[in-house]
Amino acid sequence: MAQLIADRRDIDFVLHEQLEVENLTKAEKFSEFGKKTIDLIVSEARNLAVKEMLPLQKPSDEGCEFNNGEVKVPEGFHKAMEAYNEGEWLAMTDDPQWGGQGMPKSVGMAANEYFYGACNSFMLYNLLTHGAAKLVETFGTDAQKETYLKNMLSGKWAGTMLLTEPDAGSDLAAVSTIAKDNGDGTYSLEGNKIFISGGEHNLTENIIHPVLARLEDAPEGIKGISLFLAPKFLVNEDGTPGEFNNVVCTGIEEKMGLHGSSTCSLELGGKGQCTATLLGEKNKGMAAMFLMMNEARQMVGLQGFANASASYLYAVNYARERVQSKGLTDPVGSKAISIINHPDVKRQLLMMKSWVEGIRSLIYYGGLCHDRIAISSDDAEKKQLSTLLEVLTPIIKGYVTDKAFEVCNHGIQIYGGYGFIEEFPVAQLLRDSRIFMLYEGTNGIQSMDLMGRKLTMYNGEPFKYFLEQVQRVISVSKTVDEVAPMADSLESFFAEYTELAQHLAHMPQSGKVLDAFAFSHPFMEVTGDLVMAWMLLWRAGVAAPKIGKKKKDTAFYQGQIQTARFFINTILPITRGRLDAIRRGDAVAAEMEDAAFGGK
Amino acid sequence: MAQLIADRRDIDFVLHEQLEVENLTKAEKFSEFGKKTIDLIVSEARNLAVKEMLPLQKPSDEGCEFNNGEVKVPEGFHKAMEAYNEGEWLAMTDDPQWGGQGMPKSVGMAANEYFYGACNSFMLYNLLTHGAAKLVETFGTDAQKETYLKNMLSGKWAGTMLLTEPDAGSDLAAVSTIAKDNGDGTYSLEGNKIFISGGEHNLTENIIHPVLARLEDAPEGIKGISLFLAPKFLVNEDGTPGEFNNVVCTGIEEKMGLHGSSTCSLELGGKGQCTATLLGEKNKGMAAMFLMMNEARQMVGLQGFANASASYLYAVNYARERVQSKGLTDPVGSKAISIINHPDVKRQLLMMKSWVEGIRSLIYYGGLCHDRIAISSDDAEKKQLSTLLEVLTPIIKGYVTDKAFEVCNHGIQIYGGYGFIEEFPVAQLLRDSRIFMLYEGTNGIQSMDLMGRKLTMYNGEPFKYFLEQVQRVISVSKTVDEVAPMADSLESFFAEYTELAQHLAHMPQSGKVLDAFAFSHPFMEVTGDLVMAWMLLWRAGVAAPKIGKKKKDTAFYQGQIQTARFFINTILPITRGRLDAIRRGDAVAAEMEDAAFGGK
Repeated sequence: MAQLIADRRDIDFVLHEQLEVENLTKAEKFSEFGKKTIDLIVSEARNLAVKEMLPLQKPSDEGCEFNNGEVKVPEGFHKAMEAYNEGEWLAMTDDPQWGGQGMPKSVGMAANEYFYGACNSFMLYNLLTHGAAKLVETFGTDAQKETYLKNMLSGKWAGTMLLTEPDAGSDLAAVSTIAKDNGDGTYSLEGNKIFISGGEHNLTENIIHPVLARLEDAPEGIKGISLFLAPKFLVNEDGTPGEFNNVVCTGIEEKMGLHGSSTCSLELGGKGQCTATLLGEKNKGMAAMFLMMNEARQMVGLQGFANASASYLYAVNYARERVQSKGLTDPVGSKAISIINHPDVKRQLLMMKSWVEGIRSLIYYGGLCHDRIAISSDDAEKKQLSTLLEVLTPIIKGYVTDKAFEVCNHGIQIYGGYGFIEEFPVAQLLRDSRIFMLYEGTNGIQSMDLMGRKLTMYNGEPFKYFLEQVQRVISVSKTVDEVAPMADSLESFFAEYTELAQHLAHMPQSGKVLDAFAFSHPFMEVTGDLVMAWMLLWRAGVAAPKIGKKKKDTAFYQGQIQTARFFINTILPITRGRLDAIRRGDAVAAEMEDAAFGGK
Repeated sequence: MAQLIADRRDIDFVLHEQLEVENLTKAEKFSEFGKKTIDLIVSEARNLAVKEMLPLQKPSDEGCEFNNGEVKVPEGFHKAMEAYNEGEWLAMTDDPQWGGQGMPKSVGMAANEYFYGACNSFMLYNLLTHGAAKLVETFGTDAQKETYLKNMLSGKWAGTMLLTEPDAGSDLAAVSTIAKDNGDGTYSLEGNKIFISGGEHNLTENIIHPVLARLEDAPEGIKGISLFLAPKFLVNEDGTPGEFNNVVCTGIEEKMGLHGSSTCSLELGGKGQCTATLLGEKNKGMAAMFLMMNEARQMVGLQGFANASASYLYAVNYARERVQSKGLTDPVGSKAISIINHPDVKRQLLMMKSWVEGIRSLIYYGGLCHDRIAISSDDAEKKQLSTLLEVLTPIIKGYVTDKAFEVCNHGIQIYGGYGFIEEFPVAQLLRDSRIFMLYEGTNGIQSMDLMGRKLTMYNGEPFKYFLEQVQRVISVSKTVDEVAPMADSLESFFAEYTELAQHLAHMPQSGKVLDAFAFSHPFMEVTGDLVMAWMLLWRAGVAAPKIGKKKKDTAFYQGQIQTARFFINTILPITRGRLDAIRRGDAVAAEMEDAAFGGK
């Protein structure tokens, strides 16, 4: 039967065959998460996603209702939220101390792939709640944790992230919301925030807002920003929501997609006092945000990926059903065939498959790094893995969401004219996916993070460690007959890439900062392609020895080899061209003057 | 002042400096269209577009209203249509015999760029009317011309194109609508058509439908399809619209964009007789359609291009206004600058500029080929130019609409989070543009047309002539100091490309049909990039000697050189990588079996 949202066979392959997550059970922390338990978790997640969330996707497109400061989420969201909370899914990977289930993150990624792929706008409320809860857990006082944490991780109360202001988007140093010290350990906030996802809604009885703001005597710029916690309703002594705290929703945005998620403008303290407590240290708000940002960015990557995965399955299923035109080599008068048999359709499906599967491996691998950090007792190893994750984060956020949008775009193309019609699911997946390239740091900013920070941080050690992981897969693959030629190809590309990366790492120091950053996005793209090739070669190396052993799996394993071949033999040459363009280094973009762009 | 829709300076550059359209005045037919007249025409078109059409763009997004078989277009369309018809713009390039103004098509492209860039969904009604009118003009009897043609070309009556059926999309051979001979020179149509743009609306007092259908005794497949003409209202003896002709609109589609254009399902003859006359010869309907299709496809390319051009200007203007973050090399504490000064933003704007300007040149050049055909008395030259246009058509339709979508996507990215908000114009331009990659033959089909037909037709002569045009620009550019290095780069790429094209031309004959078509789309992309490089190098060669002559034009001409440099030095290496991938020829897509795609 045709699958929906995500390919279960491939999920199992990544978890059990590629990443071997059962190895985690050797550690006490994950000892309960053997193969059977994992399979059960993934099945439960799939059931919940298919039954409760997927039916919300189409109605969610109708959007939220704004009326007099209040926001109604699409019908059906409440019921799905009940089911989601009942299964305690929000805290599936969290500390049992706060009601979490202590599940490995690698497994959590699989569950989340189903949830986000079913209805991304519904899940965004949960993503934000979880992120806000992690801020409270990491930086909160005992009192703050006591007041908020369990209610948030159980999904009873929601959370947000109040960063952006009209003049402070990419540049958070420009935040101008003010926090006045009330002298009693609380602060009064005054300011305006925009683009606040889930800033107001009727899904939960309270909403907890982490807010970036400035103390009145704070230094200018980024070093004068603190983090505060302002609930929608002040919390009574008995822990119940009390008085309204004057976080006023002044409107919601009409967007291109993701309509089920309310995107709010909020006025803090304009209509009456908005009381907040300090979260973490004074003037250290940005540091706190950055600490959480890697994880938030990894989740945005998952958001994009989940839509790409869903779009791929819709496209494959449609291509199997849709009959149109005879085969190119069939004799005149032959019957029309399913379009999955036409070479250009197959090419597009292979594009989608390559990226969906390469990204699935990358995202689960990111989860596994977290898991290995969690169970490691070796500080050096912990640092190695967490800085590896930092290196991979701009790829997971920036490269992945770029490619996810492209995959969704192919999904539409496979549907032909029907792809443009909203009755079919692929147009919405594309529209919904467009925001992932923008929020949580635009993808341009991700590329600057990769080139300007991640490439060189800690003396380049983390980046070197990343390259070693790639090299290891290449080396192992060279010993497997069927994939050795691909490993050779990748190795020769890899050598060129490594040389380029070293060259770029030294460019900013040599005074060519602007020239270097004229190539930051192309460099992210090349690096992302390398990561895809790494993951797909790894997959092929795992699959190759298994071909022919079980008949029902033969096509799947052969598909793994073919996908790697497709990527390495027909996509990687393009990447090499891009690499060559960077190496040539004609930084026209850096020297181009305003007037030369025309339009005046 | 910031310009809207299209860059007038660049339009003038292409018309007067690159293509030198005034040369057309040497011919009697175009003797009235000197530079002053052309400039006046373009200015008038711009005024009309900015004043009457641009204000429709946002309201058009609300869509059409369907009620009981009737379709209401968005408010304001009627008024704009009056102004458009009053200026006799629909027939601007047509034969004066039928009310046309006999303007060169190259100039018409400039006017249309403004119109379509202002409100594509409004203009689509006109595009269809014009296409239908050309069918009547080319294949109609005197009586048919008398009855319909002037009313259509004046915009009083609209036209459509009834091709697609639920099971006949890309494969028109599957058309099943039946035409019964009434024995009196008329036919009764019975069938269902879908995805009919402008199939029903209240913009005009009558709608004339060319319909693909089968005579009852027609042979199967493509050779049994005839073309008919069925008006919405039968025409009275006095030429006025009479009785309803049972072309019944059963619904309109809810789409991803282009909402102002009604996309209709039509039932012919289900509720009563639908009378039609034969247009052209029996069973030769497809041949007639194909004859018109090149021009229709060129217009779809213009549709995509116009949105890309509009998106580029919005993005440049926004990037000049939006202030965010200090410059990368500015000292700590410096003020934030306009984002047009950040290298990654400039890179994206240059991407947009390269394609918008390269495509503008291509599209106007296409118009100029038509013009030169129209005034040539040399049959060999006529054939050379018209087959050159046939070669370029899949590029103008397929490559251009692919790239236009990408340009619109960059437009959103430049706006940051605002790009996702519908209050700003760039999201709609992207959504509206998505259909251009699908209708009038999907872009996959365009690529198959290029590789399977255009590359080899007439013994490869037209393709060779195309290559000669590119070579000529390269040779001339090598004599211009400032652009010679770029010409050298392009020449070396060009040699590789030519070799590859020859190789591909022979592949199908050598029995590797499916393998070849697994690379048809990449080949279209590589060819399109070559065309862009050709056009941009041509521009740079024209601009270079003029630098410094007029101060106010210096930035513009320098921008021409920089844009060519950007494309040839940083994009063409990627193209070369793609070319390399095709040359390697690992046709995984051709051998991939259904089951290997997974998802079951």
